[in-house]
Amino acid sequence: MWSLKLSDMTKIGVLISGSGSNLQSIIEAIKVGEIGAEIAVVISNDETAYGLTRATDNGIPVKVIKHGDYAERQEFDKELVRVLRECEVELVVLAGFMRVVGTVLLEAFPDRVINIHPAILPAFPGTDGQAQAFVYGVKLAGCTVHFVDEKIDHGPIIIQAAVPVLSGDSESDLKARILRCEHKIFPYAIALYCSGKLHIDGRRVIIDGVDDVLLAQQSLISCPGLN
Amino acid sequence: MWSLKLSDMTKIGVLISGSGSNLQSIIEAIKVGEIGAEIAVVISNDETAYGLTRATDNGIPVKVIKHGDYAERQEFDKELVRVLRECEVELVVLAGFMRVVGTVLLEAFPDRVINIHPAILPAFPGTDGQAQAFVYGVKLAGCTVHFVDEKIDHGPIIIQAAVPVLSGDSESDLKARILRCEHKIFPYAIALYCSGKLHIDGRRVIIDGVDDVLLAQQSLISCPGLN
Repeated sequence: MWSLKLSDMTKIGVLISGSGSNLQSIIEAIKVGEIGAEIAVVISNDETAYGLTRATDNGIPVKVIKHGDYAERQEFDKELVRVLRECEVELVVLAGFMRVVGTVLLEAFPDRVINIHPAILPAFPGTDGQAQAFVYGVKLAGCTVHFVDEKIDHGPIIIQAAVPVLSGDSESDLKARILRCEHKIFPYAIALYCSGKLHIDGRRVIIDGVDDVLLAQQSLISCPGLN
Repeated sequence: MWSLKLSDMTKIGVLISGSGSNLQSIIEAIKVGEIGAEIAVVISNDETAYGLTRATDNGIPVKVIKHGDYAERQEFDKELVRVLRECEVELVVLAGFMRVVGTVLLEAFPDRVINIHPAILPAFPGTDGQAQAFVYGVKLAGCTVHFVDEKIDHGPIIIQAAVPVLSGDSESDLKARILRCEHKIFPYAIALYCSGKLHIDGRRVIIDGVDDVLLAQQSLISCPGLN
């Protein structure tokens, strides 16, 4: 078991592929001081990703690295690592990054890559977890922030949250409810990481110095108005 | 889509194998009028099951049907069906019944067999869902009440509930927390069934005439004292 203590103002690199709403929630949490970090770079594999605009609007350096420009996935990963190191990134945050990261990146940032997945893992890993859950007919859906390992949506879990599936829900209603939930727990998990409160012990993530009740409240998202 | 309307005072048969704490929660809910039903019979495949004592203490007829007395599972199932029909059972409730029920029972009681499983299905089906979840390192565990179909822990889901996994938890702490949760949602699901509010539509269970907020509250078990 070892601690993931970082510098006082952790430099994080955020990898995106799309609209970057999770990136936005991280930016806001940093602004109000909930996360002791700065975003050193936002990298997108898609030059049209709206998240790049969000970053630029907030004065954050951006970089486009198109996976299509690389014949081998390893070469793409090496370029990611090169840019992340150039920006002195300590924590890599996958925020809707639609590429599977390989061992090149994971070995360069051991236990320093985290991801959010829109399902209560280990249920519904892979693409479109929300749609999988909706079709299955679950009554509870949710999201998971976890460390990334070699298997897809599999590494040690930092925090999970649940939301109800309501009788009148469309798939997009559910997706939106889960997304609002993601925007709460992802910044929270990053804040825990950056303050050195996370320890990995096998498959278990130990969270130090945080009241159990507070953690439970983050997990069991209450929804008075079912927001 | 069709309604599962039963008689005004539904006769239910409860199948157990062990201590019968879920049976007890159903008995209590009937006593206070939360479930419009009567337990017509409690059947155990194990004559030493403490649940038989709970039933007898409450004036409920009991029957022991030992699976070991039958060479074929079908024969065991046929005897279950015979007794359930003799007692005019309309709804079969599996409450910690440690035998897989086969098509003989399911065809005799189509969409009228329900089960509780100690995990947020489809995660951790099969034996000892709580231990599987604990070892996996999830941060949310829970339980599921579902209709039984031919596959194990797979049928349409009626209600699910989540509980947090706390940093200091032992496996038995978690198991106890999930069990307290089972004791809340199992009687609730049975009550919904007996009042004719459940409809099966493919893999989805539609719940009529129940406020969404109330349902969500049942699912997202709040735990001020982490009970």
